[in-house]
Amino acid sequence: MTRRSLIELADLIADRWSLLVLCAGFLGLRRYDDIQDAVGIATNILAHRLMQLVEHGMCSRRQYSEHPPRYEYHLTEKGRDLFPVAFMLMQWGDRWLVPGHGGNLRVRHTECGSLVRGVVSCGRCGEPLSAHEVNVPVSAAQIR
Amino acid sequence: MTRRSLIELADLIADRWSLLVLCAGFLGLRRYDDIQDAVGIATNILAHRLMQLVEHGMCSRRQYSEHPPRYEYHLTEKGRDLFPVAFMLMQWGDRWLVPGHGGNLRVRHTECGSLVRGVVSCGRCGEPLSAHEVNVPVSAAQIR
Repeated sequence: MTRRSLIELADLIADRWSLLVLCAGFLGLRRYDDIQDAVGIATNILAHRLMQLVEHGMCSRRQYSEHPPRYEYHLTEKGRDLFPVAFMLMQWGDRWLVPGHGGNLRVRHTECGSLVRGVVSCGRCGEPLSAHEVNVPVSAAQIR
Repeated sequence: MTRRSLIELADLIADRWSLLVLCAGFLGLRRYDDIQDAVGIATNILAHRLMQLVEHGMCSRRQYSEHPPRYEYHLTEKGRDLFPVAFMLMQWGDRWLVPGHGGNLRVRHTECGSLVRGVVSCGRCGEPLSAHEVNVPVSAAQIR
């Protein structure tokens, strides 16, 4: 990963509206009006964030009506692939950034019916990953 | 999760240097000089980022020498808990932001010896989580 890509990554996810618009995409919302209703975002901000997400290849724009011109925004594979990251981020934020220690992120896993607690584990052996068991790249030289 | 906490979260992780300093912490580096050597970061930037991380409760500062005054920075539970998020973020960046499709993040899991591919799964049933199977909060009203 290059420094430039780290910056690009930070720019993308650092914006709360971009995160929420992405979440709308994860929920399957594609139409401008539906996204706006769900997120509760001003139209000028939504238009700008959608444009950014398209520019970064996180979603693609498709016209579904000519008169009047209307567009859908479909998450690309790159965008969909950010779901686990966004989910873990929200879970962390719910635990550590909410006064009274969170617990408001009551998200249910439809498959097993339980409240979801996401765990990051090794795709090979299935054990949860801890910082002591992996060598994360740390130096600027390593990630250049 | 409140809007304010989303912004705080974004501020913290949006900075590439903060991310790298956190990664140094994940690797077990605690002393100023060791972190600086590993990350390859200018001293004024490192001092500022460490101060920010302490302010946000991500690490605590402990003096280990009086003459000269020297400090260690220990990750708190809040800081350590960000590891899975940071790891998934790096994995995503390695796949999508690196020219030539990445694959440079060759991180080995010491427990099973294989190259790590982190997977986010349900802590209850163990199945990988996908966006279609969980209800992520999307509206500003929901996350307020």
